[in-house]
Amino acid sequence: MEESRSRHMSVDTAAIETVNQEFYAAIESADLDKMTEIWAEDTTDDQVSCVHPGWTLLTGRQEVLRSWALIMANTTYIQFVLTDVNTTVLGDVAVLTCVENILTAGEEGEASFAAGKVVASNVYLRTAQGWRLWMHHGSPVLQGDDDEEEEGELEP
Amino acid sequence: MEESRSRHMSVDTAAIETVNQEFYAAIESADLDKMTEIWAEDTTDDQVSCVHPGWTLLTGRQEVLRSWALIMANTTYIQFVLTDVNTTVLGDVAVLTCVENILTAGEEGEASFAAGKVVASNVYLRTAQGWRLWMHHGSPVLQGDDDEEEEGELEP
Repeated sequence: MEESRSRHMSVDTAAIETVNQEFYAAIESADLDKMTEIWAEDTTDDQVSCVHPGWTLLTGRQEVLRSWALIMANTTYIQFVLTDVNTTVLGDVAVLTCVENILTAGEEGEASFAAGKVVASNVYLRTAQGWRLWMHHGSPVLQGDDDEEEEGELEP
Repeated sequence: MEESRSRHMSVDTAAIETVNQEFYAAIESADLDKMTEIWAEDTTDDQVSCVHPGWTLLTGRQEVLRSWALIMANTTYIQFVLTDVNTTVLGDVAVLTCVENILTAGEEGEASFAAGKVVASNVYLRTAQGWRLWMHHGSPVLQGDDDEEEEGELEP
């Protein structure tokens, strides 16, 4: 596995990171058709799944895509700057982790912006149609200071 | 892939869910040796990674295990009840999602308890030593009411 992992690394990594960019571009442009294309099909045994920051787990294409439609309909402006992108290919599965640095519109009607940071784990599957998203798990980063982040919520 | 996925499903799933139980038991009993055994080894290309609820991404065995040592040292009592456990085997990789229903001791010195809900995605690798944890991503569930959870943070 080690050898095959290295051999496919560069080509696959480029392909996966392109799909990953398209995923965030689809959110930015509220492109539900593109989002629908990016997600893998459910199989008999397995369903796609998605965790939005602060939400519980959503499972199955229908539920996941419905959540994106809802988010797109309720988001006036959103922009992602991805940092710390790291992709690991393990056979026909790839795990991409990244930090989503997010800029959104503030409360409706105001000319304000809000910034946030989310850490995401995106699992992609190799399919006949190319790499497709099988799981997205985004969680809010609650610590602001990098030096303090390892202390987490442990300090009273 | 579909066929092999189904064929290995039951045996692998049982083995993975056993390791997953051991993972949470290790946290409950503050057993750092067991925790060390459960995590996969880093390879030249890939490092294990871990997101604790509200934290940013930690990468590499050393950093991940240090965070568990810190958490264990600062936790007087913790108990996990897992629900919605779902395991998908994809070749030599498995993704297990579950909800961690957590009971912890309150502030030190008080006879109180706190309850919380975390959604976790745990990625396991098939190794010569059995299934080993390669990524843990836990995120806080911020919505209390199941009926409202799909609305998320979208409603002002």
